[in-house]
Amino acid sequence: MKQNGFYAQSGGVTAVINATACGVLETARKRKGEIGKIFAGRNGIIGALTEDMIDTSRESARTIAALRHTPGGAFGSARYKLKGLEENHAEYDRLIEVFKAHNIGYLFYNGGGDSMDTAQKVSQIGNKLGFPVTCVGIPKTVDNDLPVTDNCPGFGSVAKYVAISTREAALDVASMAKTSTKVFILEVMGRHAGWIAAAGGLAGQGRSEAPHIILFPEIPFEETRFLSRVNECVGRYEYCVIVVSEGTRYANGRFLAEAGARDAFGHAQLGGVASTVATLIRDKLGFKYHYAIADYLQRSARHIASKVDVEQAYAVGQKAVEFALKGQNAIMPIIVRTSNTPYRWTIGQVPLKRVANKEKMMPRTFISRDGFSITKPCRRYLEPLIQGEDYPPYRKGLPYYTELRNVAVPPRLGNRFMLR
Amino acid sequence: MKQNGFYAQSGGVTAVINATACGVLETARKRKGEIGKIFAGRNGIIGALTEDMIDTSRESARTIAALRHTPGGAFGSARYKLKGLEENHAEYDRLIEVFKAHNIGYLFYNGGGDSMDTAQKVSQIGNKLGFPVTCVGIPKTVDNDLPVTDNCPGFGSVAKYVAISTREAALDVASMAKTSTKVFILEVMGRHAGWIAAAGGLAGQGRSEAPHIILFPEIPFEETRFLSRVNECVGRYEYCVIVVSEGTRYANGRFLAEAGARDAFGHAQLGGVASTVATLIRDKLGFKYHYAIADYLQRSARHIASKVDVEQAYAVGQKAVEFALKGQNAIMPIIVRTSNTPYRWTIGQVPLKRVANKEKMMPRTFISRDGFSITKPCRRYLEPLIQGEDYPPYRKGLPYYTELRNVAVPPRLGNRFMLR
Repeated sequence: MKQNGFYAQSGGVTAVINATACGVLETARKRKGEIGKIFAGRNGIIGALTEDMIDTSRESARTIAALRHTPGGAFGSARYKLKGLEENHAEYDRLIEVFKAHNIGYLFYNGGGDSMDTAQKVSQIGNKLGFPVTCVGIPKTVDNDLPVTDNCPGFGSVAKYVAISTREAALDVASMAKTSTKVFILEVMGRHAGWIAAAGGLAGQGRSEAPHIILFPEIPFEETRFLSRVNECVGRYEYCVIVVSEGTRYANGRFLAEAGARDAFGHAQLGGVASTVATLIRDKLGFKYHYAIADYLQRSARHIASKVDVEQAYAVGQKAVEFALKGQNAIMPIIVRTSNTPYRWTIGQVPLKRVANKEKMMPRTFISRDGFSITKPCRRYLEPLIQGEDYPPYRKGLPYYTELRNVAVPPRLGNRFMLR
Repeated sequence: MKQNGFYAQSGGVTAVINATACGVLETARKRKGEIGKIFAGRNGIIGALTEDMIDTSRESARTIAALRHTPGGAFGSARYKLKGLEENHAEYDRLIEVFKAHNIGYLFYNGGGDSMDTAQKVSQIGNKLGFPVTCVGIPKTVDNDLPVTDNCPGFGSVAKYVAISTREAALDVASMAKTSTKVFILEVMGRHAGWIAAAGGLAGQGRSEAPHIILFPEIPFEETRFLSRVNECVGRYEYCVIVVSEGTRYANGRFLAEAGARDAFGHAQLGGVASTVATLIRDKLGFKYHYAIADYLQRSARHIASKVDVEQAYAVGQKAVEFALKGQNAIMPIIVRTSNTPYRWTIGQVPLKRVANKEKMMPRTFISRDGFSITKPCRRYLEPLIQGEDYPPYRKGLPYYTELRNVAVPPRLGNRFMLR
């Protein structure tokens, strides 16, 4: 008898994670002879644990199609990491219990490294408990830090947004520099890896074009060297544009902007590095400055999503279903770059255990020797990922983003499950 | 003998001020039988005072046309306000001296209320000194605070950017609220008037849709009432989206941004009202928050400019030249709304003295009684201004923005003029 599938979104959402959902759902609908309904977790994996699932078969084809151009996570996402098997077996047992009750034989888990780890473990547990589940992880992360895959869906659109914003703001500052703002700072995401900050580098070419300085998490922040570069830059070009990663640290490992709070994954909540850098410039150099903090705007900017990114996000969703229906288990679809010019790509796959809990850092060769800009190999890598515009439809001057009905699947288990 | 024209950009630049420049230059080129060259001030009016002007006739027609889709100020702008005639007659005398030396009979001054005042004074002085100059002010300000005109070129595009960003970020936060961020704050421009903050209100309809709270400069900030609304909102919808104007103040007139407080990360407060509001929410309600500061991104976001705004920006430039060539002096072209549905507009004119140094506040009827949202009349006013998309051309994934040659006009006066 054909089995149902379960799809969940995990961690920070992106401008194109719903394009992946669209790929999963449209493909499953096409293959309805082989796979039953796709249930989505309301708020990600929490929806499975609490048996709070959404019946995606209740949505119209038109609504599902519109997911392709709708940012955010249509079913709700969650920052909720399952513990190790030894620490909390109950959560895994519960997942299998719920999957069994709803005849769910396929797990599609759309997230980053943590989620790949969870998907990998569920696949093991299912076998042990006599209810095998075909588990496919689907890559998603603006941080671009999953290994093996050429890049991660979600990243290309952030990269495009950051590159465009840097170029646009630079034109603004350049116009004003004579009598007003001389230094502009754009704070972008990227806690551990500088991929997003690097994308800001696409805004210009050569030393004279903005951004004049990029601060990467990979390069320890040296105040004196930094200030001297800012000063030189203002002297030479009359203004200075800086892209700073939220993850920029001192040599001792401390973030320039560390908050007290930590999230569910134990990560420090960052933000405010732009104001640290701005204060420094004001105090030591006295230049007038402005700063912008892109924050969620960068990862939800579907209005200027990269076409390549949207296509890849859809493709990994589509392929996830196709792989699962071929019986391929404990794998993740990856993006394989087959040519740089012209840019060509295809979808491959990798065992989950090779990607689970691993972070891909920027190669040092992607950062210039002085640590303040990107190299040609980096540009060659990044440029294809921001190609093409995939504009959403508009109504009354605003993008028309769809809203799902999100009808609940009737629970079959009487018991409640208490989340940690 | 036909005379030359002088064009200058003043104050903060916008996504469409170059579209106005394009309107001026293309129209002057079409009317070359009646008007000579257009010289542009390098860095605005400073370029006239220091005799540092740009010969726009040295730019190709294609480059001039590309100004229409290029943000920032192509010739450089300046924050430089001429003093009153009694205080500093020398500056006005100097302008006339330079204009006379270069046979400049037309001044096109593209800016806000200050610039209209300057244009008005130049027109008087010219007459007194026996070198009459036809002075036309051209409206430009993202703040939308010029009187008489229906709206100001530059505002519609910021409004569109802020409305879209609010809608997109809201989808992100809504997805994450179950386990992560519950409050999202977007800081926008508008020191005195809440027009830009109001535009955020277009992102949703009714109390349940984001933004749930708008903080206007016009409405004194009451901490208790605000926090209770945030709390109610998170309780009811699980998340709360706030758009806050940089100009939000306490009842005693003090800006929230000047609170002298430390932000959430312990950094000295730099004028970020978003972090003041975020700290308050963290300390008093304990909700996890994120905030974005749009800063220059909002006023340079040509990639998502409002089509109506671009057309109006061009039209005021075009009409400025046409009015000047009809001998109309000391006036400013204005946008006249002739119909709301469908939206129709035309270009009229107003004497400069009616607009100089005056600010148009938001009518109180545009803000809801509780002070936290916009009313239907406000929505009716704002909606037409963000209509239509006017996408720039792209190359390699980035908008193709033009760069001018900016060839200097050879100086004819030997003397230097010392700026204050």
